[in-house]
Amino acid sequence: MSPSRTFLDAGGSAPLTQRTRDALVAGFAEGWADPDRVSSEARRARSLVDGSREAMADALGARTEDVHFTSSGVAGLERVIAGVWTARRGREEVVVSAVERDATVHAAQFVAGRAPREIRVDALGHIDRDDLAVALDDPAVALAAIQHANHELGTVQDLAAIHELTAARGVPLVVDATSSIGHIASPESWDALAANPADWGGPSGIGVIALRPGTRWLPAWPEGDDWAPGGVSVPLVLAATVALQERLENADSEATRLADLIDVVRARMRAVPGIDVVGDPERRLPHVVTFSCLYVDGEALLSRLDREGFAVGSGSACTTSSLEPSRVLAAVGALTHGNVRIALHPGITSDDVDRFVDAATRVIEDLRSEAGAPAIG
Amino acid sequence: MSPSRTFLDAGGSAPLTQRTRDALVAGFAEGWADPDRVSSEARRARSLVDGSREAMADALGARTEDVHFTSSGVAGLERVIAGVWTARRGREEVVVSAVERDATVHAAQFVAGRAPREIRVDALGHIDRDDLAVALDDPAVALAAIQHANHELGTVQDLAAIHELTAARGVPLVVDATSSIGHIASPESWDALAANPADWGGPSGIGVIALRPGTRWLPAWPEGDDWAPGGVSVPLVLAATVALQERLENADSEATRLADLIDVVRARMRAVPGIDVVGDPERRLPHVVTFSCLYVDGEALLSRLDREGFAVGSGSACTTSSLEPSRVLAAVGALTHGNVRIALHPGITSDDVDRFVDAATRVIEDLRSEAGAPAIG
Repeated sequence: MSPSRTFLDAGGSAPLTQRTRDALVAGFAEGWADPDRVSSEARRARSLVDGSREAMADALGARTEDVHFTSSGVAGLERVIAGVWTARRGREEVVVSAVERDATVHAAQFVAGRAPREIRVDALGHIDRDDLAVALDDPAVALAAIQHANHELGTVQDLAAIHELTAARGVPLVVDATSSIGHIASPESWDALAANPADWGGPSGIGVIALRPGTRWLPAWPEGDDWAPGGVSVPLVLAATVALQERLENADSEATRLADLIDVVRARMRAVPGIDVVGDPERRLPHVVTFSCLYVDGEALLSRLDREGFAVGSGSACTTSSLEPSRVLAAVGALTHGNVRIALHPGITSDDVDRFVDAATRVIEDLRSEAGAPAIG
Repeated sequence: MSPSRTFLDAGGSAPLTQRTRDALVAGFAEGWADPDRVSSEARRARSLVDGSREAMADALGARTEDVHFTSSGVAGLERVIAGVWTARRGREEVVVSAVERDATVHAAQFVAGRAPREIRVDALGHIDRDDLAVALDDPAVALAAIQHANHELGTVQDLAAIHELTAARGVPLVVDATSSIGHIASPESWDALAANPADWGGPSGIGVIALRPGTRWLPAWPEGDDWAPGGVSVPLVLAATVALQERLENADSEATRLADLIDVVRARMRAVPGIDVVGDPERRLPHVVTFSCLYVDGEALLSRLDREGFAVGSGSACTTSSLEPSRVLAAVGALTHGNVRIALHPGITSDDVDRFVDAATRVIEDLRSEAGAPAIG
């Protein structure tokens, strides 16, 4: 990255640290063989996977034998939802929150053959537990798929309370931890879990699944697949684990530092007229914030910021193929257009954040003026 | 790899060349961002994928827009079979050869909900085209999935003749090229194709799919997946492409050299009593040969050779989880136990092969003598 670039889109992908890159290089030198074969080279690859699995289990608070690698965070969500759903034969409905990732909603739709039941959330993005309790009372419910933290809002769900509701009804709780692990303490209340190494500074192309010992599942994929068709890349497994370990070493101090930086963004952007800063300001991911801007075109805002040297995202809504209104922002009743999602990685400094807020404020003002937007009172 | 090791199990995985490793390092430095986002970092990642896709299409003789990356060779087989099958609504049967990979048979079984129809092969592993023609006349046939070359036998199918039969009946031909590309000229006769970069010295964790412009398919997976859930790793895409380009640069001379080495193995092993050298000696992969040994335990043979410094495989049958009799060897009527599969990579020399044959001959003799095997006449 050129020194003039400031990467503030580290949700789901982040520049790799030197230690993670070193792990990759070592992994490709030592772990290129197929770990399922019988040679010494295969055994060496297998031992790298085994060691990584143990370390990953430790970080997730799971048993080593209950942790599995797959080909991406999304693949993990899909497989764990499909596997748990299939073991609940006769029950078909999937319950999700209104702010789940598209991947969760699509996986539920695919496996059940119909849209999942969406539980409403409050203005901060917390799931409505009364609504959830009513939904879970339906005997047709196969599983609930609820996120630990929201990738756009930053809001962290109260999983302990949610798990109490699901467990009381014998409904398995699949937790999407693809935005939280490596940023806040791993969740404890879940029956199955999916995580995304690319979100914590690991490589893309690898996902993590964990199951509790009592969680039943059945394969919902071709024989021989295990959790990943054709197995996973050993070097990616190794690098994903090293990246998580590095993040966890400094987790507490780094979370405090990033949370303070996000507080600055929240406060300064809220001071700009017509800006909606979303999500729970307290119970949130330390490194994420989204704000929406009245009378501003989202794509123009992102492009202009990019040209000024700031890479920012726009949550689930912002990909090259779909600059659609954000489902998540709609669910919390916020402005669904002109939104910017900031996700900080450990290389970001206070100075970067100050420069960003200055630039964003100026760009928003320019865009409004160019569009002839009315004055905001 | 220590200098005393000789890796002869390069089917499906091989040590990476320096150039491929350099491509990986460059890929992780330049292509870590999510290519589906809008920032400059994302665009750079996307341009690496686009360039790789174009080069891959060129190597496969396909149009760039018809080439897709997925998470492994097996995932490619699964998705292409599922996608093409789904577009043939009302037709359910999958036709395969009796020597297809397990992954193909399992994918067919999964998508159709029943075992595929297996077409018999002759003693060299060539598909029986009369049997195929009869099977294809059944109007219930959705697709035929046939390999370009067999990963154990080395036998290369006459795809032009096979495609003539499928095309005449309007049945799409899915070709498993996961053992051939990078070793012999890419096949020309197919409607859809799957390839495995790890087999040509690329990294694992990446697969390639190609479709002909007229081939119909429908998504048989959750919305938003495209051909790979959660996208693929950009550095792996780049390295897979660079590895293939490197192989293709010297393809002709290297194929001749390796074919000569395999001829040596074939001739010398056939001279040992009670050894069955399988596959077509002429129409074959240049780098692969399998032989089976009467009165020898396969696992003991592989372990003993490994201790002597030679990593060898045992085709589809030999994984840590299944040292089962090989389906492929059974289909051609060969000995199904005590088999060794040799797959050479470009680093292997004539001296390596000579040392291997000496060691294998000695180890086989020792094992037979230890087991008290009768004299073989």
